[in-house]
Amino acid sequence: MNIFYCPPSGIKGDIAELGENETRHASKALRFREGDTITFTDGTGGWYDGTIIRMLDDSAQIRIASHTEIPAYNPRLVLAMGIIKKRDRLEFAVEKATELGASDICLFRSRHTVKENVRMDRLESTALSAMKQSQRAWLPEIKLFPSLRELLDTYSDAICLAAHEKVKEDPVTGYTIDNDNILLLVGPEGGFSEPEIEEVRQRGGQLVSLGDYRLRAETAAIAFLSRFLK
Amino acid sequence: MNIFYCPPSGIKGDIAELGENETRHASKALRFREGDTITFTDGTGGWYDGTIIRMLDDSAQIRIASHTEIPAYNPRLVLAMGIIKKRDRLEFAVEKATELGASDICLFRSRHTVKENVRMDRLESTALSAMKQSQRAWLPEIKLFPSLRELLDTYSDAICLAAHEKVKEDPVTGYTIDNDNILLLVGPEGGFSEPEIEEVRQRGGQLVSLGDYRLRAETAAIAFLSRFLK
Repeated sequence: MNIFYCPPSGIKGDIAELGENETRHASKALRFREGDTITFTDGTGGWYDGTIIRMLDDSAQIRIASHTEIPAYNPRLVLAMGIIKKRDRLEFAVEKATELGASDICLFRSRHTVKENVRMDRLESTALSAMKQSQRAWLPEIKLFPSLRELLDTYSDAICLAAHEKVKEDPVTGYTIDNDNILLLVGPEGGFSEPEIEEVRQRGGQLVSLGDYRLRAETAAIAFLSRFLK
Repeated sequence: MNIFYCPPSGIKGDIAELGENETRHASKALRFREGDTITFTDGTGGWYDGTIIRMLDDSAQIRIASHTEIPAYNPRLVLAMGIIKKRDRLEFAVEKATELGASDICLFRSRHTVKENVRMDRLESTALSAMKQSQRAWLPEIKLFPSLRELLDTYSDAICLAAHEKVKEDPVTGYTIDNDNILLLVGPEGGFSEPEIEEVRQRGGQLVSLGDYRLRAETAAIAFLSRFLK
């Protein structure tokens, strides 16, 4: 089943209007026509079925026939990681994090960050595709932070688990998690600096292990989220 | 630290000879010279330190100074999956499976398999890089099977866990694993066919869940292995 995306701003009453990209994909690649039924999500929990009542080149109108609200993830898993230098690996991490149910995906700059420019539009488009592909109704927000400190400030209410090579604690069974917000923190390529580790500790963050071997940043991110799959 | 690879056939007594690719990487990219110390693995548990005593364009001789044997993984995790059509996704799965400690990586053809040609040499080279990158001493063997049946025959002694969308059992905590060989089976793109599921069941395989959402084949492979990380 193909799922489409229409942001909440495109939905008014029982009529939804698909944007240009989604319309082109529907009409050119998948040969949808007026009268066809179509399923779409608004990326904020709304899940809709409807009928295409008007199909133009760059937009399509849908009359909504049914509508379900999918609850937000609980716990909310926020994946935060350093910026990965290679674009394909960074995009892969975002794709997989979306498939695996991250609520937010945060990137932060650190002392070890080499990459200067992050194409946020490409990452957002990657997350959008992955949401549709995995038939989820929640689009993770992708955020860029200038430092680990500002990231930790923003998520000060969450339990923070930081993957670190030099510890043994299991990320899931090592202790009880009694919080609905979990920040999963993966270091930048090259690892956390000592001041960064100290900052995590000072804010009550827990250092946890993802095994005995060195993992690439994107592998650590995926493995970390996978531990919480359910 | 950079790790190099020298297969057991290249090691005689206390002298190892690096092959052409490894030598070029050492001399051109990393500027290793005669007299430098170097660390390498034979991919079958051997972990060596030594000194480069002779560096030519296409080979390098190393005098071994120390040697450790790293035990094989226990349990042995064999990752088996359908052939993924897109090359970058297939290579990604092999890379991540190696990083996450798969003992063997098996690909099988199925009714849903579209792709005809699999570049095994590229997959082997991907696994080799990932082994070195994650500083492991065991190189997974990559095997291609003409059908799921032949794969299951080969691993008839292993416990078989098959990821399936329509079940609820947790892959790790759902039951006791009292076997040193675990076959983690991920369906082809498009999922297992009913006869394939029946075949898994008949051979005592267990169907397990990787969560409520549809995962791409390579995501399922990575998530599955991640559940066994330690």
